[in-house]
Amino acid sequence: MNAIERVPLKRKIFHASLPILRLLGGIFFDRRFLKGRYFEDEITGWKWVLRSIFFQKILGFNRHIPWPVSPFILINNSKNIIFDIDDINNFQMIGNYFQNFNGKIYIGKSTWIGPNVGIITANHHSSNLQKWECGEDVIIGNHCWIGMNSMILPGVILGDHTIVGAGSIVTKSFLEGNALIAGNPAKIIKCLK
Amino acid sequence: MNAIERVPLKRKIFHASLPILRLLGGIFFDRRFLKGRYFEDEITGWKWVLRSIFFQKILGFNRHIPWPVSPFILINNSKNIIFDIDDINNFQMIGNYFQNFNGKIYIGKSTWIGPNVGIITANHHSSNLQKWECGEDVIIGNHCWIGMNSMILPGVILGDHTIVGAGSIVTKSFLEGNALIAGNPAKIIKCLK
Amino acid sequence: MNAIERVPLKRKIFHASLPILRLLGGIFFDRRFLKGRYFEDEITGWKWVLRSIFFQKILGFNRHIPWPVSPFILINNSKNIIFDIDDINNFQMIGNYFQNFNGKIYIGKSTWIGPNVGIITANHHSSNLQKWECGEDVIIGNHCWIGMNSMILPGVILGDHTIVGAGSIVTKSFLEGNALIAGNPAKIIKCLK
Repeated sequence: MNAIERVPLKRKIFHASLPILRLLGGIFFDRRFLKGRYFEDEITGWKWVLRSIFFQKILGFNRHIPWPVSPFILINNSKNIIFDIDDINNFQMIGNYFQNFNGKIYIGKSTWIGPNVGIITANHHSSNLQKWECGEDVIIGNHCWIGMNSMILPGVILGDHTIVGAGSIVTKSFLEGNALIAGNPAKIIKCLK
Repeated sequence: MNAIERVPLKRKIFHASLPILRLLGGIFFDRRFLKGRYFEDEITGWKWVLRSIFFQKILGFNRHIPWPVSPFILINNSKNIIFDIDDINNFQMIGNYFQNFNGKIYIGKSTWIGPNVGIITANHHSSNLQKWECGEDVIIGNHCWIGMNSMILPGVILGDHTIVGAGSIVTKSFLEGNALIAGNPAKIIKCLK
Repeated sequence: MNAIERVPLKRKIFHASLPILRLLGGIFFDRRFLKGRYFEDEITGWKWVLRSIFFQKILGFNRHIPWPVSPFILINNSKNIIFDIDDINNFQMIGNYFQNFNGKIYIGKSTWIGPNVGIITANHHSSNLQKWECGEDVIIGNHCWIGMNSMILPGVILGDHTIVGAGSIVTKSFLEGNALIAGNPAKIIKCLK
């Protein structure tokens, strides 16, 4: 028995169908996003592609986003969100809102964002709600974890390795990082390392 | 070149297809709701209609609601919710729960409701959770903004121009309006004008 | 006129189609879960079955769960969640996350779980977010009610008849039960009976 025969059948089918998946994915999405660990080593990314063709491109949920995105989240502007291709899993969740039509959201490498998290770059104008305040960029460092049901408000900067506890409302920046922050408004609960 | 030719092609197609959209929409939804700014000036409302025929009328998410509603929100009772037709965008979000089976929800004109917001008119009966307390109406004024992940509890009345900060739990009324309220429980953070 | 004729037509159709529904449901789901009040007395359970064949088994949202589950919630591991068959309604909501890949979640009988509730058994490892802490089981008693947008964190035990107020973050156990708890972190607000 040689090495080739020892490759499990599932993997062999995956590798055989990869060119077709790439071709199909490339019709509906920007090829630059169909890379990284979810697309090269595993089938997961391609499942997102197939699902998203239906929801995103046929039914129109987040139609304007050039990478596969869950139908159960909202992203305003694909140009105003900067992330590492290996963290594309953050857009396959439920209940997230990336409100970035007039401000940018930076998500550092290896950062995890939980379900129902809102990242907001602009408030409604307080005297005329039909208008919006100027956007203020949100910058989230590397190796952060934003717990479920949390909110990150306009202008917030979180240093590398910040953990935001579940259900926190982050109203100001925590530049140093290496901290667990939580509460409403979020405060430092514990320094990490 | 006359004025007609200067109308962009997209708008011409929209206006040409409007009678068909109205006819189709009228089969599945109450025509009285297929009006207002999202249906007369733009295509947006009709996109909601097409999507909702599939999710609402075929798959049955919120089937009993006679206007187009996102499949990712819950509304108990269409008779117990009063809103301005121009604010129908508030029902196209994600994660919202309008719990109004035995109490009414009034949403004032030009009021914005963020994602994952819960508006609740009745609690479970505290000694027998299978039963419900009597419903208490929730009244939200005009020009309000209810931030993402917030909760408005039974009996709450919010005056005109109340801004509810993200992630707030509003347990009591703020009748005066013109205020930013936030926190758990929500308190006045700032008077507006 | 005899008794049989007085049975409403709708019920007659329901009872006539029950064998077909059972057969169809049994192809896609584990029959042991297609029982209890939502399947024997009413059509509701079978509506969930039909909808879930499409979302769960064809589109693949929560494909690995052997009972009907809303596409708008996440469950990691069907083996690590213990619940009463009559409470299967708790899995038909929106925005819930049952994070139980390495810890068990026990849900007591007649317990209600609101929308957007997260029940978490493991945190990311604080010094290496790619890893997870050991799971700690979450145990929720009978006759509890977990309000919308709440979070139950790893290791929490809630006694029978605990009511968790909307938007609460439950970080520690409340073993006695018969209490309304709320806030971030949740504290006892009121003893019940």
